[in-house]
Amino acid sequence: MVDINELTLEEKAALTSGADAWHLNGVESKGIPGYMITDGPHGLRKMRQADGVNGLYDTVPSTCFPPAAGFANSWNTELVREVGVAMGEECVQENVAVILGPGVNIKRNPLGGRCFEYWSEDPVLAGHLPAALIEGVQSQGVGTSLKHFAANNQETDRMRVSARITERALREIYLAAFEYIVKNAKPWTMMCSYNQINGTFSSENHWLLTDVLRDEWGYDGIVMSDWGAVHDRVASLDAGLNLEMPPSNTDDDVVIAVREGRLDERQLDRMADGMLRLIEKTRPAMERDYTFDVAAHHALARRAAQESIVLLKNEGAVLPLAAGEKIAVVGEFARTPRYQGGGSSHINPTKLSSFLDALDERGADYAFAPGFTLDDAAQDGALTGEAVAVAQNADKVVMFLGLPDIAESEGYDRENIDIPAKQVEVLHAVSVVNPNVVVVLSNGAVVSVSDWQADAKGLLEAWLLGQAGGEATADVLYGDVDATGRLSETIPVSIEDNPSMVNFPGGEGYVDYGEGIFVGYRYYDTRNLEVAYPFGYGLSYTTFEMTDAKAEATGPTGARASVTVTNTGMREGSQVVQLYVAPNHESPAVRPSHELKAFAKVSLKPGESREVTFDLDDRAFAYWSERFEDWHVEPGEYVIEFASSSRDVEAVAAVELEGDGKTLHLTDMSTLKEWSEDPVGARIFNDRAAEFERNGGVFWPTDEVNRMFFYTVPLNSITTFVGPKGRWFKETVLADYAAAVGE
Amino acid sequence: MVDINELTLEEKAALTSGADAWHLNGVESKGIPGYMITDGPHGLRKMRQADGVNGLYDTVPSTCFPPAAGFANSWNTELVREVGVAMGEECVQENVAVILGPGVNIKRNPLGGRCFEYWSEDPVLAGHLPAALIEGVQSQGVGTSLKHFAANNQETDRMRVSARITERALREIYLAAFEYIVKNAKPWTMMCSYNQINGTFSSENHWLLTDVLRDEWGYDGIVMSDWGAVHDRVASLDAGLNLEMPPSNTDDDVVIAVREGRLDERQLDRMADGMLRLIEKTRPAMERDYTFDVAAHHALARRAAQESIVLLKNEGAVLPLAAGEKIAVVGEFARTPRYQGGGSSHINPTKLSSFLDALDERGADYAFAPGFTLDDAAQDGALTGEAVAVAQNADKVVMFLGLPDIAESEGYDRENIDIPAKQVEVLHAVSVVNPNVVVVLSNGAVVSVSDWQADAKGLLEAWLLGQAGGEATADVLYGDVDATGRLSETIPVSIEDNPSMVNFPGGEGYVDYGEGIFVGYRYYDTRNLEVAYPFGYGLSYTTFEMTDAKAEATGPTGARASVTVTNTGMREGSQVVQLYVAPNHESPAVRPSHELKAFAKVSLKPGESREVTFDLDDRAFAYWSERFEDWHVEPGEYVIEFASSSRDVEAVAAVELEGDGKTLHLTDMSTLKEWSEDPVGARIFNDRAAEFERNGGVFWPTDEVNRMFFYTVPLNSITTFVGPKGRWFKETVLADYAAAVGE
Repeated sequence: MVDINELTLEEKAALTSGADAWHLNGVESKGIPGYMITDGPHGLRKMRQADGVNGLYDTVPSTCFPPAAGFANSWNTELVREVGVAMGEECVQENVAVILGPGVNIKRNPLGGRCFEYWSEDPVLAGHLPAALIEGVQSQGVGTSLKHFAANNQETDRMRVSARITERALREIYLAAFEYIVKNAKPWTMMCSYNQINGTFSSENHWLLTDVLRDEWGYDGIVMSDWGAVHDRVASLDAGLNLEMPPSNTDDDVVIAVREGRLDERQLDRMADGMLRLIEKTRPAMERDYTFDVAAHHALARRAAQESIVLLKNEGAVLPLAAGEKIAVVGEFARTPRYQGGGSSHINPTKLSSFLDALDERGADYAFAPGFTLDDAAQDGALTGEAVAVAQNADKVVMFLGLPDIAESEGYDRENIDIPAKQVEVLHAVSVVNPNVVVVLSNGAVVSVSDWQADAKGLLEAWLLGQAGGEATADVLYGDVDATGRLSETIPVSIEDNPSMVNFPGGEGYVDYGEGIFVGYRYYDTRNLEVAYPFGYGLSYTTFEMTDAKAEATGPTGARASVTVTNTGMREGSQVVQLYVAPNHESPAVRPSHELKAFAKVSLKPGESREVTFDLDDRAFAYWSERFEDWHVEPGEYVIEFASSSRDVEAVAAVELEGDGKTLHLTDMSTLKEWSEDPVGARIFNDRAAEFERNGGVFWPTDEVNRMFFYTVPLNSITTFVGPKGRWFKETVLADYAAAVGE
Repeated sequence: MVDINELTLEEKAALTSGADAWHLNGVESKGIPGYMITDGPHGLRKMRQADGVNGLYDTVPSTCFPPAAGFANSWNTELVREVGVAMGEECVQENVAVILGPGVNIKRNPLGGRCFEYWSEDPVLAGHLPAALIEGVQSQGVGTSLKHFAANNQETDRMRVSARITERALREIYLAAFEYIVKNAKPWTMMCSYNQINGTFSSENHWLLTDVLRDEWGYDGIVMSDWGAVHDRVASLDAGLNLEMPPSNTDDDVVIAVREGRLDERQLDRMADGMLRLIEKTRPAMERDYTFDVAAHHALARRAAQESIVLLKNEGAVLPLAAGEKIAVVGEFARTPRYQGGGSSHINPTKLSSFLDALDERGADYAFAPGFTLDDAAQDGALTGEAVAVAQNADKVVMFLGLPDIAESEGYDRENIDIPAKQVEVLHAVSVVNPNVVVVLSNGAVVSVSDWQADAKGLLEAWLLGQAGGEATADVLYGDVDATGRLSETIPVSIEDNPSMVNFPGGEGYVDYGEGIFVGYRYYDTRNLEVAYPFGYGLSYTTFEMTDAKAEATGPTGARASVTVTNTGMREGSQVVQLYVAPNHESPAVRPSHELKAFAKVSLKPGESREVTFDLDDRAFAYWSERFEDWHVEPGEYVIEFASSSRDVEAVAAVELEGDGKTLHLTDMSTLKEWSEDPVGARIFNDRAAEFERNGGVFWPTDEVNRMFFYTVPLNSITTFVGPKGRWFKETVLADYAAAVGE
């Protein structure tokens, strides 16, 4: 590999910018190639032209796997890893050195226009699954780009908005998935977000890109900008951004800044050297000649889609469909599948099967009516009539509802979470003539089901499923495979219930994350709000139970916990064992009622049992303490909940932890309560108070109300209530304490 | 008056601290007296001993007027002023130079332990009424102390907690009532709060005490500390705090700081001079010999209490009671009135009449059963039985429910907003045997009514009513006077609906005001949440209508609006005309759906009409813009709503305002949308884009999605998408713009 010192200042500056919108800069004279990088994240989006803004949809065919919003519902780490491997193979064939993704931003509000590209409202789920994807891709010798780092949770004014977030919410919610992935999957590249965090652009945020990412988390890859996110090359390099995309043709600014001493050349060296190392790391794969197996990848996309489907409702066992049943299929989506979202993640699939194609393939007895159009034209009564007619003559109706393409895309946020009213109208008309309606939803971000789900006996949340979604949907509807998806986000009763509504999407250039850590089920469960379907929820065609919960401490801040899960039904199926930790002790910090800390998807034959064991480290119990400016595990009891959703806890065990031993140092601003609970402080305080009273002073209030009041008052203020000797009292107590703790 | 320059450094330092917990320091040698100051705010709390913490309830008798939480429901500025005059007279009699209060902190969350001392969830109501109180008191030559400045919205950790609030929420919600009062009523003193605001103690907050209070608002009185709120005398003096209470005996610190140059002696002079001026201002009243009319003040307290009662429900015209009806009175509160809250506002009343006393006085035909005890003992079945027995034999039941004393006090927050379960149990038992139940509530902070109000045909929110509450309640129940109170705060369905719940009361020393400006009805109305009873709501014994709404601009940022209110019923009564302003144009800022900006209480005979006119200044239309760091009135339409509650808009008029003319200066971080909407910017941008394309470049994306995208992108980033000439484009556009706007 070329040593950074062999390069000229100009060559080094050039390495930190793209050659064009989709290529790295190489150094031709030194034999350093400028490889191509392309969008992802659920397949390869290799553009045929490279001018940056045009020809967005003119791309080389690649396998369209389920977008994150769907795939996240699989809760299947191994399956995600397999998809990663396949995507890596496609990159190798196409000579793409880095595929941009996955995006792991937290779904703060379902209105966020890019929710379909993101994984979850929960940082553990949004960390573990993408980590596997990255490991899979990178096992093939090509890089990923974990994005958008950080706090890109809306599209409105996304290129400038300042996301104002407490450090605690950043650490526990918005950075946590990134942290897990950086530490465990080690992505070769990351992409900074457009937005500002607390007033500083991510592209210029030294705290984010260097202090936290590299110094704390040990990241050793490169950071590139989101497309157009750099506003000051020099400031960005200084903050720790290796690569500007697309190029702003400002290499000369960088050169001059180094010459004028405004940019330390060693920092430029570090940034450019990262690029050299990235190029060398991808070189073997880029020089490989490889052709991926299109059919095998389609089959994998089908498995991925199967596991992404969530069965929400199955009254009277309306599902699975039986082979001989005559079904009516209603809804344009059955013919014209909505299988991915719009914007930079849009893939040109190798193959595309609709649900009708899948029915044809299996020779099903069905009649189809589109029911409605996907544009915003008023409902055509003839379409309704036709839908009612086919429904009337069928045993069951499979009705496809969902969001048309235009409803969700990169670039803008949604205004509501409703499916179009005309679709609901057709559903209602159909349900009147046929009581056996199964609704299949096609949508990237969550939609409300509260107003219409009573019209359906069966309800499948099928999200966006990628190119094999039609087949996968048929597979689940007919019960060829179990329904094994579980919700990766809460379905609220109403979008108004979301705690960020008053602050979303902000205005005047800022957005306050006022709900803090109370995102998703952390809010709904802690406040005990009714939801339509809780986080983690999903039915199976079989039944399970969890028993024999156990938990034991493995150290002051860690534990091991296990539970036995049994398939109690009549057919093979998979259960997702979800482990939530619920602190069960008085805490100085506000904490969610419980938080997901681990999960495992378990496949079981009828009657089969398996014990599942989880090792929990300190982070399973810690919160980010602004007082200690660090993670903190308090001593006390923690309940380990084993659950099939955040609202369905099936077995619990408790563990008592010693905690990390961090304690407060008492000061004159510590309250009497804090003094009296500290073993050293209590003795000193009480001794001096007794002395104060022996010498004729009145220290303790005579009435109960004021005694209670004293416990809430800092030492510094108490002493103003006890007369002229208060000052002596305070100074003596502080001196005694300093001596006792050896200061 | 003694000139400040005649005093020694030590004398000046002494003036900035109390002599003891309830006296100012004078300068004996210079003939400057050290007057007494005492707690308020709904009457005089003059302690017989002055050691600071003991003998809290051993005070000189004074008239106990309705505490703020009750009196605020009167919406009667003139009546509040009369009470202020009376309180001032009592101060003069007792030689009290300053009465501490009123407290005008906003009721951010009903759990706040001191809500009973505060006025409203709305800063206009919380500003206008206390302003009148202050004017009344000060007309008698004694001072008030407007408190707690600022953001003291909870009791939990109140002496230290850092209230983390955006400047917009501070300006629009938490400072607004203080600002109105300072500018209009000119209180002679103010009291700083214990807590920190964004990390700085109010007692040391130069921005708050000097920049905003004095320099912006023009305040010329003194600021004293809340009791024990000073932690650093020198820092406090420097920030603008005139007076530390109680004394911490640290005058020598002040003297040394001046000598060592750490405190500018001119600043100490300013602070001490404020004290001299205060003492001189109160001297005439302190030297007056005066005796107030105890009976007249009681009568005034009775009128104040009458207007504080809110009739929430009156099914089947169960009220007013008729003189001859046989009534059962149930509930200990009827015999043992709960008429004020606990803590520093507790008054020793000159007289106290219970509801039973009032019935006796009017010779009513009634039977009484206590129903329950006010302690937390389990319900005694015998008490229930007795209540049912008296209820069975009556025409109607008047049932007193409420919060016992211990449920709310200074010093701690509530944990829920429920009345004790045993009271609800008795209500239910009684309602089974008698369908004509009228519930009268006694409570300082709001209680939930949702779970039990179906058991009552009539519902009176009687709050805490002061010493004449029993008589006033009878006056309203029997219809001797109209029910004219209107809610000064929303009664939510559940406390869980409150938007601050996830952040209240915080932990680890801080509390985030994450809901921003969305406090009270600003939240419930904007998000369209169901409430039990809306802000401003209250029934009357007669009916009203509002017609002929008019509005016209009186300038670019002001308007005059009027409406005609008519008594359409059969008896005399009073309506509160509430004027809300609803911005009706696209705004760059998030705004509440509407906000109270003015109100008037109008008394009308049957059939009588009156036109009510309001002059609205710029603040009726402005929001605090963080972009302009100033108040901003946007151009556009504003709807003026005339309403009888925040949910009952009865007449509207619209006004188109030019706005204040503040506009954005375009920069390289302005988006294409901003460039295209600016008359100068649009021309320049379009000319240069055309030139760019004439010269062979491709500026505009060919597809619609990317064209839309461009509009959201800042100039600085657009230029990275258009190739190497982007830089030329940006620099040329900026140069043209600078030339055009004359830079």
